[in-house]
Amino acid sequence: MGPRGRILPWALALLALRGAAATRPSFVLLLADDLGFGDLGTYGHPSSATPNLDRMASRGLRFTSFYSSSPVCSPSRAALLTGRFQMRSGVYPGVFYPDSRGGLPLSELTVAELLKAEGYATAMVGKWHLGLGINGSFLPIHQGFDHFLGVPYSHDQGPCQNLTCFPPDTKCFGTCDQGTVPVPLLWNQSIVQQPVSFPDLVPLYNKFSRDFIADCARRGLPFLLYYASHHTHYPQFASREYAGQSRRGPFGDALLEFDGAVGQLLQVLQENGLANTTLVFFTSDNGPSTMRMARGGSSGLLKCGKGTTYEGGMREPAVAYWPGHIAPGVTHELASTLDILPTLATLAGAALPKVALDGYDLSPVLFGSGKSPRQTMFFYPPAPDALHGPFAVRLGKYKAHYFTQGSFHSDTTPDQACHGLTPLAAHLPPLLFDLESDPAENYDLLQGGAGPEVLQILKEIKLQKVLFEQRMEFGESQMRKGRDPALQPCCAPNCTPKPSCCRCS
Amino acid sequence: MGPRGRILPWALALLALRGAAATRPSFVLLLADDLGFGDLGTYGHPSSATPNLDRMASRGLRFTSFYSSSPVCSPSRAALLTGRFQMRSGVYPGVFYPDSRGGLPLSELTVAELLKAEGYATAMVGKWHLGLGINGSFLPIHQGFDHFLGVPYSHDQGPCQNLTCFPPDTKCFGTCDQGTVPVPLLWNQSIVQQPVSFPDLVPLYNKFSRDFIADCARRGLPFLLYYASHHTHYPQFASREYAGQSRRGPFGDALLEFDGAVGQLLQVLQENGLANTTLVFFTSDNGPSTMRMARGGSSGLLKCGKGTTYEGGMREPAVAYWPGHIAPGVTHELASTLDILPTLATLAGAALPKVALDGYDLSPVLFGSGKSPRQTMFFYPPAPDALHGPFAVRLGKYKAHYFTQGSFHSDTTPDQACHGLTPLAAHLPPLLFDLESDPAENYDLLQGGAGPEVLQILKEIKLQKVLFEQRMEFGESQMRKGRDPALQPCCAPNCTPKPSCCRCS
Repeated sequence: MGPRGRILPWALALLALRGAAATRPSFVLLLADDLGFGDLGTYGHPSSATPNLDRMASRGLRFTSFYSSSPVCSPSRAALLTGRFQMRSGVYPGVFYPDSRGGLPLSELTVAELLKAEGYATAMVGKWHLGLGINGSFLPIHQGFDHFLGVPYSHDQGPCQNLTCFPPDTKCFGTCDQGTVPVPLLWNQSIVQQPVSFPDLVPLYNKFSRDFIADCARRGLPFLLYYASHHTHYPQFASREYAGQSRRGPFGDALLEFDGAVGQLLQVLQENGLANTTLVFFTSDNGPSTMRMARGGSSGLLKCGKGTTYEGGMREPAVAYWPGHIAPGVTHELASTLDILPTLATLAGAALPKVALDGYDLSPVLFGSGKSPRQTMFFYPPAPDALHGPFAVRLGKYKAHYFTQGSFHSDTTPDQACHGLTPLAAHLPPLLFDLESDPAENYDLLQGGAGPEVLQILKEIKLQKVLFEQRMEFGESQMRKGRDPALQPCCAPNCTPKPSCCRCS
Repeated sequence: MGPRGRILPWALALLALRGAAATRPSFVLLLADDLGFGDLGTYGHPSSATPNLDRMASRGLRFTSFYSSSPVCSPSRAALLTGRFQMRSGVYPGVFYPDSRGGLPLSELTVAELLKAEGYATAMVGKWHLGLGINGSFLPIHQGFDHFLGVPYSHDQGPCQNLTCFPPDTKCFGTCDQGTVPVPLLWNQSIVQQPVSFPDLVPLYNKFSRDFIADCARRGLPFLLYYASHHTHYPQFASREYAGQSRRGPFGDALLEFDGAVGQLLQVLQENGLANTTLVFFTSDNGPSTMRMARGGSSGLLKCGKGTTYEGGMREPAVAYWPGHIAPGVTHELASTLDILPTLATLAGAALPKVALDGYDLSPVLFGSGKSPRQTMFFYPPAPDALHGPFAVRLGKYKAHYFTQGSFHSDTTPDQACHGLTPLAAHLPPLLFDLESDPAENYDLLQGGAGPEVLQILKEIKLQKVLFEQRMEFGESQMRKGRDPALQPCCAPNCTPKPSCCRCS
């Protein structure tokens, strides 16, 4: 690598390679949960063990400026699957609950629907968190996924204090949400276990993934597998193979199990002769939940974490891995989960949907043939509204904060700016940071006086912000549809007393 | 890699390889200056470009728990070269100045002297900072180095506001030290340039290194080259080839030039057929000087930086690179700059000196044949004394802080604990951290109540601390010998007015 980027011969060699790949690639989309920018070994964590992800990173393309579209879960996942900011689909404010009336609207086109229409087999395993609805009407199988095995929401959205998180008998730490049904495991629309058995969950997911991939290989079908892990969200858990095996305690064990799943998936691809025809993409949904203290993740040198629009809330580890097609390296180019749908569409030869998209085709970045088409990133808080607009805007290497606010998700670190009691503050002129010389967002460029260069940057950012806000349309809030206890999934619908009676093994 | 360590087949293969290496290895010891734990690409920094160090890390052994012996420069270097804590040699409190009367005592045995006695050729290039003394009596050539090209102290210890730091004409940022002579460049004991020309310095160092290695190759001599870079200490500088080439501004350019020097050294070894007979070891002297704001370094997720006994002050990036002998991997084993001398002595087949050493032979870690013999690390502040003893003690994964104190070197980040005005605080019982689940030192284990396991750990730490303090002898302070303006090096000894007249090009 030259100082500034990747060397040309690689790019040329890859263009040649790419031309040779006539068949449409398959896709494995790996999503971690609340995993921070600094949590992987390859992103600098001193005690994490992530050998498979690290190997994927060293043999694939590692991103240093990859963003989720939201610092919390449901909106981040909505944007990932649709290529559209969460405000368009109405997945705001906050996240879905087990009894939420709303969900990702069925009118939204997901990457699964797009690829399914192109003849892809599609499956999802893991955490959905985009609504359940009446009769499971918002579940993955209504959003383009042929198969689904997983939990419809976050696995802390249920009582967990009596559950075993680590075998043989270590109870889950903390209490999770009370007064709601035990967390269910769904197969398509049916509850197959309630409460979910955490120590058995990932082996089930891995078997599901293995069977799906093997079946696609047998049928010669290109496929999309969306593997949305519960790791490393609180409460952490692990199966027998991983419990107590890490240096980092329960968080480390959970991360190790996720890493193990990645290793198994890569091996399954290899065994089915699909390694060179499958793009594996890994990232996380939002920053670390530092309120969980030593059981939370780390954003490394970045500021704050989950729930905030600082870098730690939304900049994520990300790796694109496709042997023979994507050259090993590191890219500093700007990219986002919003870009997944347009990129996969392009690689699958599908036309982009006729809707307002917020993503870009990252092919030039993946194949080293050019710069990222993305020049801006807009940072919306967990509760966005059209009146405030984006809290922050990144243009090139600069980031301007118009509003800052702490979050309880980012509590307990020494930085007061992150904490839950740190109120909303408006900044006009904005706080302005050079994220390349100051990725920690510590040194406001305007504190040193604004020279003509900085004033020009502010002008450009303001223009991009206004243009973006002109284009942005807020859909009807799905969260404001409210909640109805009757919508909570129950494996024994007529049991009493609810919600605690909903238990089937 | 298995979850917990490096796999056995590697170790076996390497033992076989090692047995085949009958000749004594040469050594290149690379030391960065004020470079933090989080500053390299391979340690997670998102915008640093360190392709050569990253490659060295990926093909060598990368340490995650490697410590310097002091959070400031002179004592850290004294310990590195002697394998003894700085208190023994009297290199405390603080650092040497251009007119310091003291220096690293000639009675101390350096790794250069040890290897020279075994027939090694020895050379040092770069920053010495272990005293100058009357007639240069403390310079490297009196401490076992056959050759020396460099600056006898830190390159900010002289006026720099009129100097060019970046070609063609970018002045050095800030003012550095006033009222002292311009920074000299020495060849052995002679001043060859005053003030030093920053943009030309590293190419000179690289030529010196290249010539020395080539000469050793020609003469068939094993060698020690100690390359102590000025990068990335303030004021940052770079030569024409690197100026403006990084994403990270002046700090990034300086780091890129250091990385380039590493690349050139590796290439010289290759060209001279010495790649497989030379152990290259890289680390840094202390944590980042965050008071320099965006021009300071980063300790990544670690707490604070230079001048403090928190992890950010003393945990350092470190890589051991020896193709065919050291297997690629990551080690979490505990290690220190104090261990360099015993390790090199062992590899060179030299007997350990008959002095009180604080270091251990790291061979088992390097060759994957066993655990680190080091189980403890003692953290002394810049101004240590026998009354306070070590501020902190690490035993295994636990670290107990008996005293904490901020440092002006660690100013400007949001963490108040780091800052210069944060006074000395005694902790009894100590603050206790699990550095593997909480490397950021955020969550005192004793806050949650002390169970029997924790009490047992505290007992063990207390015992190790007492035993260590029993063994530790404080030598006469070299810094308290004071300063004498007449000792400042001047290329025109009889010029006036001093100190500013000392200029020769």
